[in-house]
Amino acid sequence: MASSELEIIQRYFSTKISRPSINRLGIGDDAALLEIPSGQQLVTSIDSLNEGIHFPSQVTAFDLGHKALAVSLSDMAAMGAEPVAALLSLSLPMADLDWLSNFSAGLLQLAQQFNVDLIGGDMCRGPLSITTVVNGLVPRGKALLRSGANVGDRIYVTGTLGDAGLALKLLTTGAVVIDPLLLARLHRPEPRVAAGLALRSVASSAMDLSDGLLTDLNKLCLMSKVGAILYAEQLPLSNALLDHCNSIEAWQYALCSGDDYELVFTLPVANENDLNHLSLEIPVTCVGEIIMGSSVTLLDASRQPVIMSRKGYDHFGEAV
Amino acid sequence: MASSELEIIQRYFSTKISRPSINRLGIGDDAALLEIPSGQQLVTSIDSLNEGIHFPSQVTAFDLGHKALAVSLSDMAAMGAEPVAALLSLSLPMADLDWLSNFSAGLLQLAQQFNVDLIGGDMCRGPLSITTVVNGLVPRGKALLRSGANVGDRIYVTGTLGDAGLALKLLTTGAVVIDPLLLARLHRPEPRVAAGLALRSVASSAMDLSDGLLTDLNKLCLMSKVGAILYAEQLPLSNALLDHCNSIEAWQYALCSGDDYELVFTLPVANENDLNHLSLEIPVTCVGEIIMGSSVTLLDASRQPVIMSRKGYDHFGEAV
Repeated sequence: MASSELEIIQRYFSTKISRPSINRLGIGDDAALLEIPSGQQLVTSIDSLNEGIHFPSQVTAFDLGHKALAVSLSDMAAMGAEPVAALLSLSLPMADLDWLSNFSAGLLQLAQQFNVDLIGGDMCRGPLSITTVVNGLVPRGKALLRSGANVGDRIYVTGTLGDAGLALKLLTTGAVVIDPLLLARLHRPEPRVAAGLALRSVASSAMDLSDGLLTDLNKLCLMSKVGAILYAEQLPLSNALLDHCNSIEAWQYALCSGDDYELVFTLPVANENDLNHLSLEIPVTCVGEIIMGSSVTLLDASRQPVIMSRKGYDHFGEAV
Repeated sequence: MASSELEIIQRYFSTKISRPSINRLGIGDDAALLEIPSGQQLVTSIDSLNEGIHFPSQVTAFDLGHKALAVSLSDMAAMGAEPVAALLSLSLPMADLDWLSNFSAGLLQLAQQFNVDLIGGDMCRGPLSITTVVNGLVPRGKALLRSGANVGDRIYVTGTLGDAGLALKLLTTGAVVIDPLLLARLHRPEPRVAAGLALRSVASSAMDLSDGLLTDLNKLCLMSKVGAILYAEQLPLSNALLDHCNSIEAWQYALCSGDDYELVFTLPVANENDLNHLSLEIPVTCVGEIIMGSSVTLLDASRQPVIMSRKGYDHFGEAV
């Protein structure tokens, strides 16, 4: 049964606005309208997921709805912003109502969890592609930036690294049984919004990990005009990951695979004690420190440089 | 030559911020940061253009860059908002540097014309698809909404209607020579931002025309809980359109074809005299009036109802 664009939006994507003092106008007009509270700045980010590039075609619609919003919420976490509103542009080959029902359920469940309103969007025919925008709020001047790292700062990450990368590898190589914990890390990333908000008071810089720690930390170093040392032995690895590989392979996943959606952040040494008093809702691990320079060096337990054979993901980079 | 995502962004999309007091952080971090001036609300809208759906594959990259931004600026015009910042998500099959150079030139030229900063984005491999978000500002409570039309209001449109529809028809039927004026209406729509800003003080409702006047006015009526009469004889038609078709065909284009990116707005009769004193930068034409009811009725010169055989564009509607 074919449905019109309007019917689809009304049936699957219209929900009650949960933040009416901020989101003054929901779905249905030419644009949405936001009232930004005094003293707050708006934080805004856009992300796209394309079938075959960002996700294999067997991903469920529910997981896709979750992940499409999660990757944008993760950007808010990285900025120390409180997400308040989302926009969705959905391109899909046909109006498959089952698919739409599950997709919207995945997206709206996560939106509700973070008290984020879906306030606008666009829908059209085309290859499956999902673009999300999330708008958030941060007190003026308090956003966590990539450019704030200083020499001597400690480098931390939230959670564990490499699990999503291993899950993707297992999926694409046809593994029959895959640990549900690993699959959840790939398909249902949990944006570290609470950690981002808490870190605002202590971290000097932050970003989220979507393309692998090595690649992403390099970007942070570039923006901060510093270098970094990473200690391979200190990388936080899950038991699920260690069950599948030796240390070197595990480091490879932790450093070079994408889709972690954890945060990497830097902390002045003087603030390290404060970390224990924050409600981060997720363990954090010191994995290195900021040095003078412009590159990221990986050291093993005996402080010898380790060369990784594979870089993180770059959509248009040459294969290495 | 392959280029990395970062190099592409730096080379083609990084420009000096022209509104530094609003756009506090440009491209390069996890998200952009906006300072909303006191007394202003944020207006935000998202639109996607997909190859083969929204545009034929022979459209030039420059035109595509122009149009991708223009359709979002048109939403700002419809809200009576002043556009200030744009985000771009670009999915393309390969890093074609010529294409990127022309695409960014088309987009950034229009951005500069409207003093809009490109503050963030996302780029990935995939079928050619372009999603733009534009953020604008409007004094609190002054946005033009679709829901404000009242019984007795006059219905106006800016510019002329149907030109883009005819151009698309000529293109897709293989016409050898096409009037450049018609092609420009299709490929280089001029968002009616100045008109939108000026109309804020007099119009009771507004929206932009992307799917054809009949379809779009129906949406406005739905939101305003009113009906409408349109007078076919009053539809503003260009000479270029009239050169190609008889009246009935011309009405068909003006009412049912998409891509006009003109504004339709309603005006209380008491405000009609004020229209002459506004700097709209574009002629406006009264095409009908708002009545009680819930549908749009088209009347001919003898006030007899006209039935159109084709509705406007709906991405998921059944073909009619």
